[in-house]
Amino acid sequence: MLTHQTEVLVRFNEADPLGIVWHGHYIRYFEDGREGFGKRYGISYLDFYKNGLAVPIVSVHCDYKKPLRYGQSVIVETTYIDSHAAKLKFDYKIFQGNSKELVAVGTTTQVFVDVKNFQLQLTVPDFFMDWKKEVGFAK
Amino acid sequence: MLTHQTEVLVRFNEADPLGIVWHGHYIRYFEDGREGFGKRYGISYLDFYKNGLAVPIVSVHCDYKKPLRYGQSVIVETTYIDSHAAKLKFDYKIFQGNSKELVAVGTTTQVFVDVKNFQLQLTVPDFFMDWKKEVGFAK
Amino acid sequence: MLTHQTEVLVRFNEADPLGIVWHGHYIRYFEDGREGFGKRYGISYLDFYKNGLAVPIVSVHCDYKKPLRYGQSVIVETTYIDSHAAKLKFDYKIFQGNSKELVAVGTTTQVFVDVKNFQLQLTVPDFFMDWKKEVGFAK
Amino acid sequence: MLTHQTEVLVRFNEADPLGIVWHGHYIRYFEDGREGFGKRYGISYLDFYKNGLAVPIVSVHCDYKKPLRYGQSVIVETTYIDSHAAKLKFDYKIFQGNSKELVAVGTTTQVFVDVKNFQLQLTVPDFFMDWKKEVGFAK
Repeated sequence: MLTHQTEVLVRFNEADPLGIVWHGHYIRYFEDGREGFGKRYGISYLDFYKNGLAVPIVSVHCDYKKPLRYGQSVIVETTYIDSHAAKLKFDYKIFQGNSKELVAVGTTTQVFVDVKNFQLQLTVPDFFMDWKKEVGFAK
Repeated sequence: MLTHQTEVLVRFNEADPLGIVWHGHYIRYFEDGREGFGKRYGISYLDFYKNGLAVPIVSVHCDYKKPLRYGQSVIVETTYIDSHAAKLKFDYKIFQGNSKELVAVGTTTQVFVDVKNFQLQLTVPDFFMDWKKEVGFAK
Repeated sequence: MLTHQTEVLVRFNEADPLGIVWHGHYIRYFEDGREGFGKRYGISYLDFYKNGLAVPIVSVHCDYKKPLRYGQSVIVETTYIDSHAAKLKFDYKIFQGNSKELVAVGTTTQVFVDVKNFQLQLTVPDFFMDWKKEVGFAK
Repeated sequence: MLTHQTEVLVRFNEADPLGIVWHGHYIRYFEDGREGFGKRYGISYLDFYKNGLAVPIVSVHCDYKKPLRYGQSVIVETTYIDSHAAKLKFDYKIFQGNSKELVAVGTTTQVFVDVKNFQLQLTVPDFFMDWKKEVGFAK
């Protein structure tokens, strides 16, 4: 299992009038987690870009377990979920930084498209297949 | 079926370097749709608030069908999904404003909490039950 | 004097834990005002774009007079400030939608750059000079 | 002179269709810088809050020198500007993380208000006067 933990600070302006982080910001925390993962394992947006690919999100899901408050930090645990499909799937667990309580879980699915014309890639691109081999998910 | 359509303008700053609207902003379009619905049918955040309730999101899901570009507008169709549970569920369809093409679908689930102490309400609050009667979903 | 009024809804997620709109969002209200002005008078971002130009902001200023709260709407009054320089300057007044109280004033300055290489245009571009003639600011 | 440097990552979703960071996000970078400063020197939002104070922004200014692109990081240098007025003023310099080029400069001014009723404090609050003594700006 390939996983990475990224720490994210909750900004004052991310909490709403109830004092809790607005639910939409968790989608950004997922992206921060995915970015941290991508930098750590060599598949950031820029790595895809250099290989002529963009990886738009086609599905996102988030379940909220506990409220997050301003002044807290969060740890985003991002896990790559391997499959044979021409897709890129990550699971996320968001923990409150101090108490380590689980505050949210989620999933994103991305597809591979040609960065020039947004043409959907129906098979796993070579660049990504190479990456899968490197990290031990393909031979 | 109780539904409402809200028009939302896509802001320049909501499109990313690929020229398409960043996926996280759709969560805000859902909220705009929910707000429009709430104003139309008398269950906006402020209506809940006056009745001592907050309705935090506990689950959100979005499937992206087509990219949205800057300069386009969107129509968010928000539909109330009735149930017996002490929950508030909405379905969303986002259409491109001109072509009327479906660009995304999604769902949110909210719970009822006491606005003062965030205590979860395990039964449907009176205020909401009254609303359900008014709009024809309960007797 | 060329001016335009745009109504903007204050979103729930734009208010902070103090219950007032986070100051950074006013910069977006200015952009909403500028967009409204641009659509009304034919100099939106897309109009510039079609003429090979981008108009990045080089300076922004905002003075906050009164707090804005969630549930209120605002009216952004955007005024074009003419000059001989190769610049695009707007003044803004933000009013609370109901009370019409002035809640903020501000200014933005933009320059003209080539959209392909970001080369600064040292003289007023033809497209914009034509626009100035049309609206009565140049002969 | 009391100053602090905070590193901020430029998020993918902060760059606009021109590939450069949308100007409104710099206001958030200022806030990140102010937060870093506040944590370092004991005057974060939460420190004010514990002392019954909020410090809303009454003025913000930003001059943009160079475009920022996605994938870059920035260093926000936040400097406290002392004065006798019942105000809190900071200057900011934003540098590109690698090249150390100056990309923006700015200023914010905050006032002291009672956190309960938003009453403006016309004299420097004791808590802040104590802080000024501690860091060497008052006797």
